[in-house]
Amino acid sequence: MIANRLIPNLRSFSSSSAPRILHIGDVLTSSKQFSDQDVLQFSNLTLDFNPLHFDPHIARQSGFRDRIVHGILVASLFPRTIAFHFAGAVYVSQSLQFKSPVYVGERVVAEVRPVQLRQNKDKYIAKFATKCFKDREVVVIDGEAVALLPNLEIIDGK
Amino acid sequence: MIANRLIPNLRSFSSSSAPRILHIGDVLTSSKQFSDQDVLQFSNLTLDFNPLHFDPHIARQSGFRDRIVHGILVASLFPRTIAFHFAGAVYVSQSLQFKSPVYVGERVVAEVRPVQLRQNKDKYIAKFATKCFKDREVVVIDGEAVALLPNLEIIDGK
Repeated sequence: MIANRLIPNLRSFSSSSAPRILHIGDVLTSSKQFSDQDVLQFSNLTLDFNPLHFDPHIARQSGFRDRIVHGILVASLFPRTIAFHFAGAVYVSQSLQFKSPVYVGERVVAEVRPVQLRQNKDKYIAKFATKCFKDREVVVIDGEAVALLPNLEIIDGK
Repeated sequence: MIANRLIPNLRSFSSSSAPRILHIGDVLTSSKQFSDQDVLQFSNLTLDFNPLHFDPHIARQSGFRDRIVHGILVASLFPRTIAFHFAGAVYVSQSLQFKSPVYVGERVVAEVRPVQLRQNKDKYIAKFATKCFKDREVVVIDGEAVALLPNLEIIDGK
């Protein structure tokens, strides 16, 4: 299950139907618990059968306590979060530092925070700080994304 | 279908059964044609339903000529290529610049080239230049990856 929500930060949104506009200081989040089935599906789709994802013995030999989730699968929470709130967003770049392992079965929360917003013709170039957490405070991925947004109106999702 | 091969670059490998060791100058590659089914499966797995992947009209409004493949799905060729040749490789970081769109049905070739190899205790830290191409010469993703390899022996894969 993925829960998406927009956390107003440093300002509050009105409850009217006026569109909510993205500002520096907002935090867009989503979360996902990564199951055995997710890992298997992702491996079958990408043909990435690194034994770290399937063999607890090899995972332990590599210093982990159990099988880990593919880093790129966890990182997919970032474009998913951006696209959820900005239909038609175009991904320009993403940097990813994999800081801590995500074990199969763990829940991860992705936070996407705009740090720079710039109009470019009829679109907006948005730079986001992108972080994934587990256990509330353990950073599992840190990085930055740049996306081209059709506008700054936040869609609250379906 | 994914075809994997190791292209010896600037040196040739012997045909003996001696392990082949990764060197600066080698090129590890893999390729994949991204189908409608791949895009749908990836969307269902990650819940990234950006209309750019499903609606040709919205894709055209965003400047593309048709529906595009998720950038992160294309980028998954990098860890897949590294893991294919180094079982138990641990991903440390990846940067991704999305340079050109990949349209549904297009074939992409990923090239992973070691640019720095450093021993760290009983493991190796490898920095790779990572590029994806379509139509032989069009760069679709450019970036760099760092991975922790259990050793430098190249597995030729299954």
